[in-house]
Amino acid sequence: MQKVNLEQALGQIGAHWRPHIVADFNDCKVQLSKFEGDFVWHKHEDTDDFFLVLHGRMLLDLPDETVVLEPGELIVVPRGVEHRPRAVSGEVHVLNLEHAGTVNTGDAEDAGALTAPEQRL
Amino acid sequence: MQKVNLEQALGQIGAHWRPHIVADFNDCKVQLSKFEGDFVWHKHEDTDDFFLVLHGRMLLDLPDETVVLEPGELIVVPRGVEHRPRAVSGEVHVLNLEHAGTVNTGDAEDAGALTAPEQRL
Repeated sequence: MQKVNLEQALGQIGAHWRPHIVADFNDCKVQLSKFEGDFVWHKHEDTDDFFLVLHGRMLLDLPDETVVLEPGELIVVPRGVEHRPRAVSGEVHVLNLEHAGTVNTGDAEDAGALTAPEQRL
Repeated sequence: MQKVNLEQALGQIGAHWRPHIVADFNDCKVQLSKFEGDFVWHKHEDTDDFFLVLHGRMLLDLPDETVVLEPGELIVVPRGVEHRPRAVSGEVHVLNLEHAGTVNTGDAEDAGALTAPEQRL
């Protein structure tokens, strides 16, 4: 059982859209990511998706609106809901929780290189 | 689905050791709390306990050590592990996740008034 310093951990992450697992919580993974640009529209049928913005401004496209998330703001996307994270005004750092084993691009068929392997920091 | 601004939400919490649910994530509750002084030793047999410190310095007593957590640091206490959060140098603000229905004082028999009802902000 070790504590995680978010700033130090983020300093070890380079690539964008590559979540890194920093802790395990129940049946979920606790991840840190850096976002820049647009992700793909996708959904996860088997897990809610928890986002807490640590740095930068994240846009979260949802079926009927776009939510703007600043540092210190969190949102939970319920399972089955289409969403698309975006970072259009500089890099965004995010703490994210979802079930272990969840693929970051969910059901997206056009995910291409955005689909990341599960990796641990 | 609404975002939560942590600072604004914490502004609505007065009492110490009274977690307030601000969101639901899978089978867990996402809570904000303010700590001051000592909590009781306890454990949760059915859930891990996720703590992210947002403000102040939190001490987390564990069976063999005391972990010092500063703002921007998180730790997950595995289920079944005895622990005691403390705030000895001013108020501490914490984001905490655990299974919905979990009692904040766990198995502690001497919890007294520290046992809080589940409440939503």
